Amino acid sequence: MSYVVALDVGGTSMKGGLVTSSGEVTPFEGRPTERERGAAAVVAAIRAYVGELAGHGVSRFGEEPSGVGLAVPGIVTSSTAVYSANIGWRNVPAEDFVPGDAPARLGHDVRTGGLAESVFGAGRDAADFLFLPIGTGIAGAVVVRGEPYGGAHGWGGEIGHTPVWPSGEKCACGQVGCLETYASASAVARRFERRSGRTATAKEVVELALSGDVAAREVFDEAIEALAISLASYTLLLDPSLVVIGGGLGEAGPALFEPLRERLAARLTFREPPELRPASLGVQAGMLGAALLGWQAAGVPDAGAGWATETLLGGR
Amino acid sequence: MSYVVALDVGGTSMKGGLVTSSGEVTPFEGRPTERERGAAAVVAAIRAYVGELAGHGVSRFGEEPSGVGLAVPGIVTSSTAVYSANIGWRNVPAEDFVPGDAPARLGHDVRTGGLAESVFGAGRDAADFLFLPIGTGIAGAVVVRGEPYGGAHGWGGEIGHTPVWPSGEKCACGQVGCLETYASASAVARRFERRSGRTATAKEVVELALSGDVAAREVFDEAIEALAISLASYTLLLDPSLVVIGGGLGEAGPALFEPLRERLAARLTFREPPELRPASLGVQAGMLGAALLGWQAAGVPDAGAGWATETLLGGR
Repeated sequence: MSYVVALDVGGTSMKGGLVTSSGEVTPFEGRPTERERGAAAVVAAIRAYVGELAGHGVSRFGEEPSGVGLAVPGIVTSSTAVYSANIGWRNVPAEDFVPGDAPARLGHDVRTGGLAESVFGAGRDAADFLFLPIGTGIAGAVVVRGEPYGGAHGWGGEIGHTPVWPSGEKCACGQVGCLETYASASAVARRFERRSGRTATAKEVVELALSGDVAAREVFDEAIEALAISLASYTLLLDPSLVVIGGGLGEAGPALFEPLRERLAARLTFREPPELRPASLGVQAGMLGAALLGWQAAGVPDAGAGWATETLLGGR
Repeated sequence: MSYVVALDVGGTSMKGGLVTSSGEVTPFEGRPTERERGAAAVVAAIRAYVGELAGHGVSRFGEEPSGVGLAVPGIVTSSTAVYSANIGWRNVPAEDFVPGDAPARLGHDVRTGGLAESVFGAGRDAADFLFLPIGTGIAGAVVVRGEPYGGAHGWGGEIGHTPVWPSGEKCACGQVGCLETYASASAVARRFERRSGRTATAKEVVELALSGDVAAREVFDEAIEALAISLASYTLLLDPSLVVIGGGLGEAGPALFEPLRERLAARLTFREPPELRPASLGVQAGMLGAALLGWQAAGVPDAGAGWATETLLGGR
């Protein structure tokens, strides 16, 4: 049976799998990206991992992979990893990541996750939406007319660094008042510690807020308000039918979604807010989106349309 | 020679013209929209005006128009004027605006202006940009992959109502801290009067600011800062290669562009700001964009590609 190798390359770890054209997924253990060893070592590590996965594929399916898809951070075209501040590479051609002859296609990490949510995830009934994973950082995939959109040069989607309180706190990026500095999981933990002197993960801060802890409630409230301001701007500018929220904080459920819905609606007086919906593919979104890229490389651009979420996530 | 009837319908006045496929423009006197007489009267007035313009066309070119294009406010599809709070209509089919048999096509007023700037105006070398007319109000045309984009339901582009200072001044729309409430021409005039007790147009406020008037300088500075915050968000989210600024305040020239460039750059630490460029079609943008819609209706979707700005604006 034909299949593709799919790889989601993050700053600290990468996650791979084999995905058949009918959406049967064989996930593999992730491994460290080891960016501290330098860009060339990361490229070599990715290439070795792709080779290993292809080896598993040959054992299992009796043939070489039909394509390879890779989700990578930074500025990316479908054929070149142009730049990543995080990893440090510049202009790496897609072929450098692949030891064999299989055609390869690259995608931006967050937009590739957005592609998966768009094709068979929480956004599958929406052509125009925002995929917003809230984790250590915040970046978005702007989905426009059914396709993730990176702007003129691929720098788009940086909603985490849009100013929400323009005279507010300084962000690690050097700008002032960025969404990320209030609402990312790491910001919630950091701001709680600064306010209370206590250490807690973002998840614990949410639990503390629900149980009435004043400092936790203030910090979580400010995170929600920052998200509401930012989503109000997004809504007014791009009129999405939907916002799909993922990442660690996206899993907070009603504790996040209920007040966020309320505050977003309060910020919009002359139009309805878009629906807010949890992401459905979790941490697999990037790898599954990479599989779609692999099938595009293989000349099967409509692969994925019939894939069922249950099958895709069955192996998780 | 074949031609189309083009009409730009605003809240208070409408502006029409005849445009041949080679971009020869015959502009006509504008006339009041007379929205105070109700939506049905406005539709009838538009229809009568289109009929008159077609009559001029028959006299001049010896044939009926090949198509009719109309730029209208509110929520619009290419075949229906869905809703306008300003005019009060709901679900008016394009044919209702046209007395004869010519095929007609509608477009959103600001996005139609953006279409014209995109095809043969200041944005003709850019596929991904923002067209931002700053007049009595502020709305934008988000141009994505060469086409103005209205979002899921056509409500997009409302950059004038994105929050820049989320705990700031109340906007007429009921929201708080909207860009428009600081940076539109009417906001600049209103805020100057409130601060100084003196009456002046926005243009005069800019002149006063340049000549050192403290109140005028403060008000104009805040308008520029509001624009910088808003354009920083836009840039981070959508990575435009260009921002085309039009409208009355857009004609302020270096007094606006120089400090705005500086402040936008100061709000962006990890990426370059997009180029800021004045619009090139002035108040004719909507009518010229409507001509493109007319040619689309006539089955000539690539009309406009060879039109020269000088010819287009010659009759102004």
